[in-house]
Amino acid sequence: MKEFHIVVIGASAAGVTAAITARRHYPDKSIFLIRQEELVPIPCGIPYAFGIVGTPDKNLIPADTILAKNNIEGTIGKVVDIDRGAQRIITAEGEEFGYRKLVLAVGSEPMVPPIPGTDKTNVFSIKKDVAYLQQVIAQMEGAKNLCIIGGGFIGVEIAEECRRSHPDLSISIIEMLPHCLQLVYDEDFSVRAEEILQKQHISLVLNDGVNALLGDGAVEKAQLQSGKTLDADVVILGIGAVANTALAQKAGLKIGASRGIAVNRYMQTSDSNIFACGDCTEKTSFFDGAPSGLKLASIATMEARVAGANLFHTRRANQGVIGVYSTVLGDCAFAAAGLTKAQALEKGYDIAEGQAESINRHPGCMPGGENMKVKLLFEAGTQILIGGQVMGAKSGGEMINTISACIHQRMTADDIATFQTGTHPALTASPIAYQLVNAAEMAIKQMNSR
Amino acid sequence: MKEFHIVVIGASAAGVTAAITARRHYPDKSIFLIRQEELVPIPCGIPYAFGIVGTPDKNLIPADTILAKNNIEGTIGKVVDIDRGAQRIITAEGEEFGYRKLVLAVGSEPMVPPIPGTDKTNVFSIKKDVAYLQQVIAQMEGAKNLCIIGGGFIGVEIAEECRRSHPDLSISIIEMLPHCLQLVYDEDFSVRAEEILQKQHISLVLNDGVNALLGDGAVEKAQLQSGKTLDADVVILGIGAVANTALAQKAGLKIGASRGIAVNRYMQTSDSNIFACGDCTEKTSFFDGAPSGLKLASIATMEARVAGANLFHTRRANQGVIGVYSTVLGDCAFAAAGLTKAQALEKGYDIAEGQAESINRHPGCMPGGENMKVKLLFEAGTQILIGGQVMGAKSGGEMINTISACIHQRMTADDIATFQTGTHPALTASPIAYQLVNAAEMAIKQMNSR
Repeated sequence: MKEFHIVVIGASAAGVTAAITARRHYPDKSIFLIRQEELVPIPCGIPYAFGIVGTPDKNLIPADTILAKNNIEGTIGKVVDIDRGAQRIITAEGEEFGYRKLVLAVGSEPMVPPIPGTDKTNVFSIKKDVAYLQQVIAQMEGAKNLCIIGGGFIGVEIAEECRRSHPDLSISIIEMLPHCLQLVYDEDFSVRAEEILQKQHISLVLNDGVNALLGDGAVEKAQLQSGKTLDADVVILGIGAVANTALAQKAGLKIGASRGIAVNRYMQTSDSNIFACGDCTEKTSFFDGAPSGLKLASIATMEARVAGANLFHTRRANQGVIGVYSTVLGDCAFAAAGLTKAQALEKGYDIAEGQAESINRHPGCMPGGENMKVKLLFEAGTQILIGGQVMGAKSGGEMINTISACIHQRMTADDIATFQTGTHPALTASPIAYQLVNAAEMAIKQMNSR
Repeated sequence: MKEFHIVVIGASAAGVTAAITARRHYPDKSIFLIRQEELVPIPCGIPYAFGIVGTPDKNLIPADTILAKNNIEGTIGKVVDIDRGAQRIITAEGEEFGYRKLVLAVGSEPMVPPIPGTDKTNVFSIKKDVAYLQQVIAQMEGAKNLCIIGGGFIGVEIAEECRRSHPDLSISIIEMLPHCLQLVYDEDFSVRAEEILQKQHISLVLNDGVNALLGDGAVEKAQLQSGKTLDADVVILGIGAVANTALAQKAGLKIGASRGIAVNRYMQTSDSNIFACGDCTEKTSFFDGAPSGLKLASIATMEARVAGANLFHTRRANQGVIGVYSTVLGDCAFAAAGLTKAQALEKGYDIAEGQAESINRHPGCMPGGENMKVKLLFEAGTQILIGGQVMGAKSGGEMINTISACIHQRMTADDIATFQTGTHPALTASPIAYQLVNAAEMAIKQMNSR
C-alpha cells in the first residue's frame, strides 16, 4: 500500500486548490490526489461550452499540469471507502492508499426535481462530466424547443449560449420565483437581466413550476403548474445541486443541517484527520452563522485554502460564506456580494441603501466608456456594509471584490466613503463620481435624514 | 454682503466634492462655491486632450450642472483675501462673502524647474486652464521636436497622446531617475512601461536632467546634464506641482513641512472654521505619518469628503495618504497602491513579496482575455499588506481598489488568501488562479520558508 502525508479526493476547484495550498504550506510533505474523471471541466465555464467556447473539451481544468508543477502525485480512480482507523482509502478497483491527513473535495451532483418524467430521454442535468456534456450539446442540433427548468445562473447562461449557437431554437426558461436570479440580485437587477434575455427571444415563464415532463420515451412537453404546456424536445434541469456525501456517510462522518459534510471553522470534519471543502461541505453564513445552501467555485477555493493550510497546523479559520457572484448577460455584467435587500429584511436587519451610477471613464467621451451602477446595503444602526451589487461595465467583475473585501472587513459607510480609491480617465469613473464611494455617501445621506 | 453657512473656494476635484459632501451631510445649510475659472478641466483627463479626446473643452468638470443639482450657489471670481475675524472672503473685484465655515480647495500650480530658459516661448507647463492648454496643443501643429521634462504620469501620458495625434513628431522624455514612473512602480513595471513607450518611438533619456533651455526667444534646444543636447521646438514641463498657499499664508494660516496648508486629521486648518483639502493641503503618509508630497485627484476627493462631512460636526478622520494610481500605456493598464519595494525598504520594513499572473478569463479561450499580473508587498513580521501593483488587463483599474481596501484595513496575507473573491469565466481569472489571492499565497510561502 502506498502511503502519503496528504491525500486529496477530487480534482475540481476545491480539490486542486486544496492540493496546491497544501504544497505551498507544507513543502516537505508527500501529496497525492485521486480523481474520478480523466477530464475535469471548469465548473463555471460549462454554460460557455454550449456557445462561445464551442465544446466541453476546451473548458478543462489543466489538472495534470497543475499537479505536476506542484509536485503532487495523482491517479484516476473511484474511492468507495475510507478506513478511518487504519487511515487509508480504498478504490473500486481494490487499491488502497494510506493518509495522515485526508481532504474530501468530492463535489456535488445536480438536483433532480421530484416530478414525473425526468427519466425520459433528452432530459439532462448539468453534470461535471465532459462526455455527458458532449451528448447534451449534440442533442441541441436539430432540436426545436429547449426548456430550461430554473432561472438561476446555469439556466440564464445556458439559455444565452444556446441562443448564440442556435439562432432559430425556441428557448424557454421556467422559474418558480417571480424573477430570474432572484436569490442573488435585487428586483431591479433581475428585471434588467430579464429584459436582456427577452431581447434575445428567450421566453421567460416566471412564477410557475413544472408538474411533469410528458412524452413517449423522449420528452415532448413540459406540463406546468399553471396548467400551461410547453413543447420541448430538450429539457435542461438547472435547479441547484446536492452535496456528495455518500462516502463521508459510509465512513461515519457527521452530516450538517443543510446536508453537506459537517466541518468546523478549520474545515475539519468530525474526524480531525479528515478535512472537507467545496460543494460537498456544509456551509454557514458570514452574517448570522446559519446553515447556507450556497455552492460556488469561489467559495470552494476559499474553503480549500483554509483546509489545505490547516492540515498539520491550524493556521486559518473560515469566516462563513459571503456569497460573491458575477455573470455577463448580453454585454452587461451583473455582480453581487453579500445579502440582497430581501435577504437582509428576512434576517431582521434595519437597512439603508445607497446607489450611484456613472460612466466608467472620465470624461465620458473617453473610449470604452460603459455605464456602471453600484448599490450598497448597510445595517442602518452600525452603518456596516452587508451587501452590494454592480451592473454594467465588465470591470464590475473586479469591483465586486472590493465590495466583498469591505463586507469581509465589516467596513462602515464612512470607511467606504473615505478609503482611497484610485481612478483614471481610461479605466474608471472620475474621483468625484466614483460609484462605490458615492453609493456609500448616498446611504449615509439616507441614514442621517432619519 | 451675502452670507452663507458654507463657502468653498475652488471647483476642481476637491472643491466640487467638498461642496457636494457638505450638501449631503448638511441638507439645510446654504452653500456657496466661488471659482476662478469659467471652465474647469478634469485634471487627470488633461493628457488625453492632447490625443484621443482631441480638445480641452471636451475634458471638463460639469461644475455648474453639479452645483445646480445639489442646490449650491456659485460664482466666478478671484479670492484675494480672507478676513478671519469677520469670517468673510474678499475678491479682486472687492466683493465680500460671509462664511461660518470656509473650505480652501485652491489646488496647485505646476512646478517650474530652477534652470535658465523656462521663460522662453514654446516652453509650457500643464496648467489647469483650458485657454492655456488650447495654446499648448495648437503649438504641436507643425512642431518637429517635443521634449518632455519629467517621466511621471503627466509626461508619459502626454507623450503617448501626442504620438497618437502627431505620428511624425519626434518625442523625447527626459527623466532624472533611472526609470520612468519610478516613484510609483517597481522596476519591472517601469521597464515594461518604457518598452511600450519606446515601441511607439518615444525616446527616453533616463538618468539625466536638463541644465538649460537654449534658443533665441523661442526654445531651440535642451542642454542636458550629461552634455548631450536635444533639439526642441516645444518643451513641456511635467515635474510635479506645488500647493497654492498664498491666500492661506496671507490669512496667517499655518503651512506644513511639505509646503501645503497644514491641517489636522479632520481637515481643519490652524483656524478651526477654515478647512482645506486637495492639492493645496499638507499630506501625511498612511504608513508612518511622515509628510507626503503626493498630489492626486483621488486623494483630493477623499480629503474633500472628510472636510465636507466635518464642517459642523466632526464625523470623519483622514487616515493619511495610501497613494492609489492607475494609467494605461499602449493597451496595458498599470496600477499601484501603497508602497513600492524601494519605498518600503527605505522606510525600514522587512518585506516579503508575492506575485501571480494569469489570463483574466477562464477558460483562457473566452473572448476578451488579457494577461494580468499582480504583485503584493507585505511587512514580513506581521504579514500586513503595505503595497500592491497590477499590470495588464484594464479591469486592473478596479482590482487596485480592492488592494487599496486591503491596505486600508491592514489585512494580512492570510486575510487576503481567504476572503471571498467572486470570479466568472467572462470577467476574471478562475477561482483557482485568481491573481490577488495567489499573490498573497506566494508571499506566505516565502514568509513561511524563512
